[in-house]
Amino acid sequence: MTARPDKYCPIARTLEVVGERWTLLILRDLVLDGPRKFQDLEQSLAGISPNTLSARLKILEDSGIVERRFYSDHPPRAEYLITPKGRELRPVLKTLKRWGERHTRP
Amino acid sequence: MTARPDKYCPIARTLEVVGERWTLLILRDLVLDGPRKFQDLEQSLAGISPNTLSARLKILEDSGIVERRFYSDHPPRAEYLITPKGRELRPVLKTLKRWGERHTRP
Repeated sequence: MTARPDKYCPIARTLEVVGERWTLLILRDLVLDGPRKFQDLEQSLAGISPNTLSARLKILEDSGIVERRFYSDHPPRAEYLITPKGRELRPVLKTLKRWGERHTRP
Repeated sequence: MTARPDKYCPIARTLEVVGERWTLLILRDLVLDGPRKFQDLEQSLAGISPNTLSARLKILEDSGIVERRFYSDHPPRAEYLITPKGRELRPVLKTLKRWGERHTRP
């Protein structure tokens, strides 16, 4: 078998963006709970460092999967929400959920 | 929003097992190409270290997603194949593929 260069594999290319546990858990929160503030996500994703959360959100924003929206100008306050492009990844979460329900236990 | 403890979230529990880029690429190879030897996977997953590949395969075996089968006793030679339980994750790969085709470029 020859190598399958990442750039020519759409699965690998998608995983460049979302192939990381925290990233998929951020998507989970935004899909299940709607728009969230940074602090909401930090609290929900117990154990994530602010730096990691910030970096993951940046990747998701740059990829057009998540949008940052200001809901107050003074003081500036932002929240994150999933975009239509991000919503297309919902079947991933659905499959992970069903699999977890069938094959893992709390 | 309160914390969503990982143990009570089936998505988080599944991601404990497959929430890592290499792991999902190993599944990709076994689903797309059928049973593979360690060396096949090492070659396809350009850049993976033997230690990482070995560790990921161990997690997948322990979780019943991948099976190691000996196809020769003398000398002992093994190959890895996806199990029915592992096949249930195929929709994840399918969604990642479609998303990558639509939204990313080589």
